[in-house]
Amino acid sequence: MGSVVADRPYPLDPLTLSEIEVAITTVKKTHGQVFFNVVTLHEPRKAEMTAWLADADAAPRPKRVADVVVIAPGGKVYDGLVDLETVTITKWELLDGEQPIITMEELQLVEHIVRKDPKVIEQCIISGIAPEDMDKVYCDPWTIGYDERFGSSVRLQQALMYYRPEIDNCQYTYPLDFCPIYDADKGEIIAIDIPKVRRPLSKAAPLDYHPAAVEKRGGYRTNLKPINITQPEGVSFKITGRELEWQNWKFHIGFNYREGIVLNNITFNDKGTVRPIFYRLSLAEMVVPYGNPEHPHHRKHALDQGEYGAGYMANSLSLGCDCKGSIHYLDAHFPTRAGGVRTIKNAICIHEEDAGILFKHSDFRDDSVIVTRGRKLIIQQIFTAANYEYVVAWVFHQDGTIQPEIKLTGILNTYAMDPEEDTHGWGTQVYPGVNAHNHQHLFCLRIDANVDGPNNTVFMSDAVPSDAPVGSPENFYGNAFYNKRTKLSTTGEAMTDYNGATSRTWEIANTNKLNPFSKKPVSYKLVSREAPGLLPKPNSLVWKRAPFARHAVHVTRYKDDQLYPAGRHVPQTSGDKPVGLAEWIGDGSESIDNTDVVLWHTFGVTHFPSPEDFPVMPAEPMTLLLRPRNFFAGNPVMDVPPSYASTPSQLLRGEGGVRGVVDAVSRLAFSDAGGNA
Amino acid sequence: MGSVVADRPYPLDPLTLSEIEVAITTVKKTHGQVFFNVVTLHEPRKAEMTAWLADADAAPRPKRVADVVVIAPGGKVYDGLVDLETVTITKWELLDGEQPIITMEELQLVEHIVRKDPKVIEQCIISGIAPEDMDKVYCDPWTIGYDERFGSSVRLQQALMYYRPEIDNCQYTYPLDFCPIYDADKGEIIAIDIPKVRRPLSKAAPLDYHPAAVEKRGGYRTNLKPINITQPEGVSFKITGRELEWQNWKFHIGFNYREGIVLNNITFNDKGTVRPIFYRLSLAEMVVPYGNPEHPHHRKHALDQGEYGAGYMANSLSLGCDCKGSIHYLDAHFPTRAGGVRTIKNAICIHEEDAGILFKHSDFRDDSVIVTRGRKLIIQQIFTAANYEYVVAWVFHQDGTIQPEIKLTGILNTYAMDPEEDTHGWGTQVYPGVNAHNHQHLFCLRIDANVDGPNNTVFMSDAVPSDAPVGSPENFYGNAFYNKRTKLSTTGEAMTDYNGATSRTWEIANTNKLNPFSKKPVSYKLVSREAPGLLPKPNSLVWKRAPFARHAVHVTRYKDDQLYPAGRHVPQTSGDKPVGLAEWIGDGSESIDNTDVVLWHTFGVTHFPSPEDFPVMPAEPMTLLLRPRNFFAGNPVMDVPPSYASTPSQLLRGEGGVRGVVDAVSRLAFSDAGGNA
Ligand SMILES: [Co+2]
Ligand SMILES: [Co+2]
Repeated sequence: MGSVVADRPYPLDPLTLSEIEVAITTVKKTHGQVFFNVVTLHEPRKAEMTAWLADADAAPRPKRVADVVVIAPGGKVYDGLVDLETVTITKWELLDGEQPIITMEELQLVEHIVRKDPKVIEQCIISGIAPEDMDKVYCDPWTIGYDERFGSSVRLQQALMYYRPEIDNCQYTYPLDFCPIYDADKGEIIAIDIPKVRRPLSKAAPLDYHPAAVEKRGGYRTNLKPINITQPEGVSFKITGRELEWQNWKFHIGFNYREGIVLNNITFNDKGTVRPIFYRLSLAEMVVPYGNPEHPHHRKHALDQGEYGAGYMANSLSLGCDCKGSIHYLDAHFPTRAGGVRTIKNAICIHEEDAGILFKHSDFRDDSVIVTRGRKLIIQQIFTAANYEYVVAWVFHQDGTIQPEIKLTGILNTYAMDPEEDTHGWGTQVYPGVNAHNHQHLFCLRIDANVDGPNNTVFMSDAVPSDAPVGSPENFYGNAFYNKRTKLSTTGEAMTDYNGATSRTWEIANTNKLNPFSKKPVSYKLVSREAPGLLPKPNSLVWKRAPFARHAVHVTRYKDDQLYPAGRHVPQTSGDKPVGLAEWIGDGSESIDNTDVVLWHTFGVTHFPSPEDFPVMPAEPMTLLLRPRNFFAGNPVMDVPPSYASTPSQLLRGEGGVRGVVDAVSRLAFSDAGGNA
Repeated sequence: MGSVVADRPYPLDPLTLSEIEVAITTVKKTHGQVFFNVVTLHEPRKAEMTAWLADADAAPRPKRVADVVVIAPGGKVYDGLVDLETVTITKWELLDGEQPIITMEELQLVEHIVRKDPKVIEQCIISGIAPEDMDKVYCDPWTIGYDERFGSSVRLQQALMYYRPEIDNCQYTYPLDFCPIYDADKGEIIAIDIPKVRRPLSKAAPLDYHPAAVEKRGGYRTNLKPINITQPEGVSFKITGRELEWQNWKFHIGFNYREGIVLNNITFNDKGTVRPIFYRLSLAEMVVPYGNPEHPHHRKHALDQGEYGAGYMANSLSLGCDCKGSIHYLDAHFPTRAGGVRTIKNAICIHEEDAGILFKHSDFRDDSVIVTRGRKLIIQQIFTAANYEYVVAWVFHQDGTIQPEIKLTGILNTYAMDPEEDTHGWGTQVYPGVNAHNHQHLFCLRIDANVDGPNNTVFMSDAVPSDAPVGSPENFYGNAFYNKRTKLSTTGEAMTDYNGATSRTWEIANTNKLNPFSKKPVSYKLVSREAPGLLPKPNSLVWKRAPFARHAVHVTRYKDDQLYPAGRHVPQTSGDKPVGLAEWIGDGSESIDNTDVVLWHTFGVTHFPSPEDFPVMPAEPMTLLLRPRNFFAGNPVMDVPPSYASTPSQLLRGEGGVRGVVDAVSRLAFSDAGGNA
């Protein structure tokens, strides 16, 4: 196992540092000084890429192209493409009323301006803050979502306001009740939303989680003994360039400003046959709608990936802290606003974990037994969206299951309240004077399917009782039930919701290939139980802007560049004109039967805050499974070495079983306790 | 940390080996030679126990009493109690038409009798098995469920028939199509169920998972490097007798023949205040209904815990195989049929695991950050129910969450089919000639609640949109949503089902105590997404026998001895007379408002087999959470030492942060790769 550096970028690799520089230089040469918003890989057209994958000698290698978005003086936004091989700009298009992603640098600017704005200072005084304390005023700049008073031609942010009595205090304990609106072109505050009922600055004592505060409250617990995880013989995966091989799996690890981790060309070596499963997997978008109807809280519904970027917001990960064991890291490179390059060191971590028992069976007759431990591989990133952190892990299992997993942690978005104020059920007082509003976290998993080839069909699968009544000859004892499969033939039919009552799942099937035993189409099944519906109502602002959240599942026919289900440029869309999925699906008549399909799955949680979540939230996990069903002709992990195996014949002959890959280091917890088995 | 042996049994300890012997000797003295079916702890009456817990000096220590079930000659079944302190039988009651649990020893007997039975041999010949090969015929004896032809006064088992060409072959590849019925009193086969359409013995090649078979197919994979987990300073938990203390948690670990692990007196030390949460937690019952309506498959609906016992079927666990790291084990003792004692060594394992990130937050302004890793404690057992194994883990988290987790592995129950036969959707051909029927695994979690005291109230909690339409003043932008709480006031109202569309949860609340900040009742929330309804129809045999499976949640008022929701003696109940929960709930009028309540939660999976599951199933996990909500006045894990923490003021002063409990052993996977952060 090891890591081999590739001699040239793989067609799906993120742009290298020098490629980003080439793109920037090329743009600057023609268009002068502009603000660089995006410089990212323009992904190869699928037809080109699959032709090259099928026969790298005959087909041309897909070109390296940079997808560029810039903001020119006067707030003019351009979409461009730079051919990195010929070093030429092949597309340059002025956008009309579209706002590209808001970068970290743009977010950073707002706080300084807010602190100096006279009208903001005036509001701070009303809140009870002295003008000389303006350095204690902070703001989390958010995308404005959409505000019909300002439309989309002016580039805006809304500033959610906080106060810190001391610099190390958690500002979310001291929310302010007004909301300045920032114009990025002018670099100034153009309006302030002020509520009718004012809530003065909270006088509650701070509640902090930093070490000095914990020490003051009595210090850290001392009863936690270390757990060490080591791989003395190294890891079990191998990386060539960014292509990873592990336990029959092979795939490419991409990363971009928006989706963060992108996995491509996911294949499984099934006894020597390399079988494609997914062409591309990513978290393509998310939305976090807040449920308080009072103005202007409706604007809190960040589409974090399209509006800020899961790549742009990626944390630099740290050994032994974010990740434990034997870890491989990958860095990420992004343009700076002025045309430099910034590197996020260790943006992705890759490691293995013991996965508990993979399979076990004992025969009750003679206690002959096999027990085999499983292993998993985890590709992980963490991103910080202002107050929240999202830990995104792509977990690969040996049995062919892929398990995307997200943990939510970080800090609640909070708003001011008078301690005796009624929250009207739209939020919870999590600390005196702190109202944490109801919200949802909804993520859109984009599944570009390739189950034994590009032509796939999606079925909805429900567990239902037989129609025949109890006592009838067909169902005398009433126990009959079956798996009702419904083919989703068109994009319209495919707009489907989760049904807990039928344990609904969705199968991505290749109807051209049947399992030799079950005679059912080979398939991957989407098993996802945390799929709340969008709680903002149909035709609400959120519903319009986040079309992917309208249903748990949408399916479209694959088309190049249909990557982002809330549209390419998300900030300040009104949704009045259909965007993203809503635009692509249109009247819903397009056939998705036995063709190259993309399944968009929206899952997540509804979060009614409680005091346990404050001032920092214990991580809350959510997960789903992509499981092979009727895909393999038998259990694909029987060749994983067992920890212990004994057979009836061995026991009959008085022989012991075979001790396999049992680690030599597991120990009894207490030396005085009972013995080992 | 360490393990301290108690000088005398705690009132909730399982009977010790010598206590079992005393009970047996006492019974034998009075009643002569009988078959011992159950000798287990008769649990202290709750009133006595809580009085003693409240004031051990003033209140009498609850007595040690054995709960005894025996089968006397002639098949007479007696329920008895033996006072172990006075060594007297205090209750001895002849049952009428009730069958107690079927022990492993009783199951073991059947195969020998089946092989010699002339009518069975005749059927084997019809299947294509030579009479001299009867030693290759195997049977899994199952409870008969209920068969109206035989009723419940005769003690029966049904023998599911299999064949092994060679002794080490997996018999589930070769199911036979007929089903002998065994009379335990007579020790003979009294009937054979023979299908109209016969399926001869499969001639398919074996598909085995034992080492010799894997070697023949090319051998084990060699690309899996070891992962070692060590705790050089020992574990972080302490055990006194069977009382465990870990990270603010304290609870007692019981174990019985039926439920296996039982957790009692679960408390959490909240900054010095010991707060009760649950009086008793266990898996109280389960049912595995199969969905094939053809006779006699309706009889396949094992209530495994009441009919065989999760304790009786417990595996003896093995270091480095079933469990990894630093492990503490507890043994279990049970009576033998003849009146001896058998010990299951290492029936329970206890260990800690790293739990990933517990919480993290970075400030985007200055990259000041805190990241703290979590730890979990796992109390685990595994039991084998004929073909299936169930891995049951009780996971405790530092933040007050308890997470019961079950993994399914082992082997599918299979039935014979002709390779070209239509399964009619009631099953799947997982291998030539092998039909694995649709089935559910439904588990009943018994939650004897004690949230800040015995008087609790259960609320159903649904995430719902505001009623006000989009555009109305109350909900202009349509984003309003809230947590709709419905009090379940009576046992009838409390019969409720899971609703995926509203992300339904249930809160076990103490309405007498409000959270100081949210002003909501302190509560523990049941978050369980895998709660399929019972697919056998209302008034079906399974529905009648397994009343707990009719709804995801039932709530009853606590009463001593109401432990088992399908009744005390489960085999051969017809369900025509209400049993267990159905009997206790009756007309549903009993108030459960602000009183001592028990919540019964049924969860699980519906399993449509596929070839991946054969011949042995990769473990399929399911889980749920019991989460504190409005229980704590703030995040209860802020005092867990961070891995790394830096504050704005430190960064401003140019100081680094604090490296906390970072293990010294985490490493980069490849020495040639990029550096550490
Ligand atoms: Co949240
Ligand atoms: Co199953």
